[in-house]
Amino acid sequence: MSQTPDSAVRTYIGQHRAAFLDDLAEWLRIPSVSAQPDHAPDVRRSADWLAAKLTETGFPTAEVWETPGAPAVFAEWPAGDPEAPTVLVYGHHDVQPATREDGWDSEPFEPVVRENRLYARGAADDKGQVFFHTLGVRAHLAATGRTAPAVNLKLLIEGEEESGSPHFRALVEQHADRLAADAVIVSDTGMWSEDTPTVCTGMRGLAECEIVLHGPDQDIHSGAFGGAVPNPATVAARLVAALHDEHARVAIPGFYDGIVELGDRERRLWAELPFDEASWLREAHSYATEGEAGHTTLERIWARPTAEVNGIGGGYQGPGSKTIIPSSALLKLSFRLVAGQDPEHIEKIVRAWAAERIPAGIRAEITFLPATRPCLTPLDHPGLQSLARAMGRAFEGPIRFTRSGGSGPAADLQDVLAAPVLFLGISVPSDGWHAPNEKVELDLLLKGVETSAYLWSDLAENWRHAP
Amino acid sequence: MSQTPDSAVRTYIGQHRAAFLDDLAEWLRIPSVSAQPDHAPDVRRSADWLAAKLTETGFPTAEVWETPGAPAVFAEWPAGDPEAPTVLVYGHHDVQPATREDGWDSEPFEPVVRENRLYARGAADDKGQVFFHTLGVRAHLAATGRTAPAVNLKLLIEGEEESGSPHFRALVEQHADRLAADAVIVSDTGMWSEDTPTVCTGMRGLAECEIVLHGPDQDIHSGAFGGAVPNPATVAARLVAALHDEHARVAIPGFYDGIVELGDRERRLWAELPFDEASWLREAHSYATEGEAGHTTLERIWARPTAEVNGIGGGYQGPGSKTIIPSSALLKLSFRLVAGQDPEHIEKIVRAWAAERIPAGIRAEITFLPATRPCLTPLDHPGLQSLARAMGRAFEGPIRFTRSGGSGPAADLQDVLAAPVLFLGISVPSDGWHAPNEKVELDLLLKGVETSAYLWSDLAENWRHAP
Repeated sequence: MSQTPDSAVRTYIGQHRAAFLDDLAEWLRIPSVSAQPDHAPDVRRSADWLAAKLTETGFPTAEVWETPGAPAVFAEWPAGDPEAPTVLVYGHHDVQPATREDGWDSEPFEPVVRENRLYARGAADDKGQVFFHTLGVRAHLAATGRTAPAVNLKLLIEGEEESGSPHFRALVEQHADRLAADAVIVSDTGMWSEDTPTVCTGMRGLAECEIVLHGPDQDIHSGAFGGAVPNPATVAARLVAALHDEHARVAIPGFYDGIVELGDRERRLWAELPFDEASWLREAHSYATEGEAGHTTLERIWARPTAEVNGIGGGYQGPGSKTIIPSSALLKLSFRLVAGQDPEHIEKIVRAWAAERIPAGIRAEITFLPATRPCLTPLDHPGLQSLARAMGRAFEGPIRFTRSGGSGPAADLQDVLAAPVLFLGISVPSDGWHAPNEKVELDLLLKGVETSAYLWSDLAENWRHAP
Repeated sequence: MSQTPDSAVRTYIGQHRAAFLDDLAEWLRIPSVSAQPDHAPDVRRSADWLAAKLTETGFPTAEVWETPGAPAVFAEWPAGDPEAPTVLVYGHHDVQPATREDGWDSEPFEPVVRENRLYARGAADDKGQVFFHTLGVRAHLAATGRTAPAVNLKLLIEGEEESGSPHFRALVEQHADRLAADAVIVSDTGMWSEDTPTVCTGMRGLAECEIVLHGPDQDIHSGAFGGAVPNPATVAARLVAALHDEHARVAIPGFYDGIVELGDRERRLWAELPFDEASWLREAHSYATEGEAGHTTLERIWARPTAEVNGIGGGYQGPGSKTIIPSSALLKLSFRLVAGQDPEHIEKIVRAWAAERIPAGIRAEITFLPATRPCLTPLDHPGLQSLARAMGRAFEGPIRFTRSGGSGPAADLQDVLAAPVLFLGISVPSDGWHAPNEKVELDLLLKGVETSAYLWSDLAENWRHAP
């Protein structure tokens, strides 16, 4: 998958590296913390700064888009070629909260470079990874002699990702026509490691529900009544226990209906990843692996759907004891979904499965939250091939494939725009997302620039848009 | 079981009824709330008041016994007959908290009589039921012309029952020689109803444990790790689900070992009780009965052991969702035990059963609280026969038998003193124990006096102590 790098691209990046890093540092100094209301002006300032910078970069269109929450930034640079594919780059300009007292070695909003790493809140998540596209497109133009990118290039950089993207789907639906694209490039993810550059090919979806089980109208005495009336905490526990069979497969009838099974080639490629169970367990803060029979750990977290209890509660949880049958019990369940699984179908079968397990005398209230669909791009998709080739040229080596077990707003873009999602991220697990001393490796950041510079040409050459 | 009442007893009670009620009212005015530290002087005043009143009643010995908490009262009146059996009456002089604002129609510590009911905190639980023994023993002496009771009569009236009797067992152990008795009479319980006077023949025991299940060292992301590591909340739920089999029998191996099964006669007698499932369910604030197959509701709460989850907790229980695998989960389990079950055995088999169900990667901490043993007096026990006859004379009708599903400090007396426990209580379910407007039915209170007056003679006649 490795391709020849382009010396013109590298030369251009070398010449503009210092200014690029200065600009990024300026952006990182804006504490655009979307979760903290007193930082709302900073989030707006961050959006304005980015829109101005994209205009300066050459985008003919760069707009701040309002939402009921924090503003997003949209930019567009047409290729001027009717057959050129259209790509939409997704990222976010808001960041997680951070204060020096959290354990930072330097001020989180005062970027510093130590040992070729840029330390700042947002360095990796996600300002650094959004920003490499600005120098990337300039390098692309410089190396190809073009005045416009080889693809119709659009950017949508939201301002509420760290707050759960509450208005993102509505924003995408509202502007679906302007956002229309043949592919979405998400630059808000990472790679396996510095030594193992990878392209992520999909994320799991997420269906979440809360089940409240109502028993007696009040807590009742377990001596006076125990053994003769249903206990809602017991019913809650039995639901959880019934989620899986003895092979740790989800036992809800119809749960696996229509799922896209992991192909042999992808399975083989994953098996070649330098996976070390001991270090993975350390990362998971866990003491044993456990999961669906017949699958490796990577398969379990990337390619298999799950049913997890995220919360359970009922009755007395304080010190000592209280001899009651609780009045109610609560379950928070979530289901990670893989390609082929439909959240509406999951809701339907979970409701039916639960209803069958609620005994007389217990009333269940089941509420599903808005779901996130899975997304998956097949290995042979031309856009994915282009991305892997572009990364291969930047990294001068083979590019491997991963998936993500998590779920994200990328799925909204996939759904609304009916476009495949490709993940171009250069962050590594040690970058400390959401943690103190977040950083980005400068060498990797520049590989991101370089990948971006190669990608648009490769896409335009290999994936023509049917006009 | 009905016997002829004694007109001398009734005459004596009629003559002293007013003074008896005045005295009781004086005691009820002392707010001896053991759970509230600022009422500690009142609890002591209540003990002092009772000891003085017992001396006035004629008890040669009446002492206030100190504990590390609130004081108890001990009194003794020897029969002067070496073959006379010794009985120990148990009750408590502390009360539940109460304020007018809780919904009382009158001041809780200012007793009033309305419609032949005495309203006050402690009227039924337990001052009224302790106090009927004072007039009872006087009526017994007056009717029999004796100067000392026909039995060696001892009273132990504790001051911390409403606070969980934390020092009671130690107190009993400390004074075991002075408390030695052939039978314990517990006057801190009730009857089926005003129309159906009953004697309780036993209480269930109680073993309680807390199980903490430790999984990951911190909450971890259910997307990144879900499906590949054990979830402690799932393990907790599976333990609860494994407590019972499909017949709602406790599925812990050995749980039913050695239990005293309900006899045919007692089962038939229970079946004759005017049990109405609809009103029982209202009392249970519940919407369906459910329990061990092959047993009625009364059998389930009185004669069968249980396993209940009193509390369960783990992970996120707030509004909305949090996509985590929780670091730990908590279970509060309790087991109601019936005669023949040994709490130490229960602890052993629960620990073994749980250990088998803890998967790799999960660490369980299991803590058992001090247990309460079950107590049960067989229907043909001579003391129980005497009690039923004495009640039958007072109520002029048949006395039926019940048990209590609850567990109480009576079991400590049974264990330490190696004496059977008999329950003489005249309270009815509508008396509002622990609730606003607690009351005692004056007619029933005087039936308690009368029963007490008949009981000592009957016991002495029918159950000689082997000297």
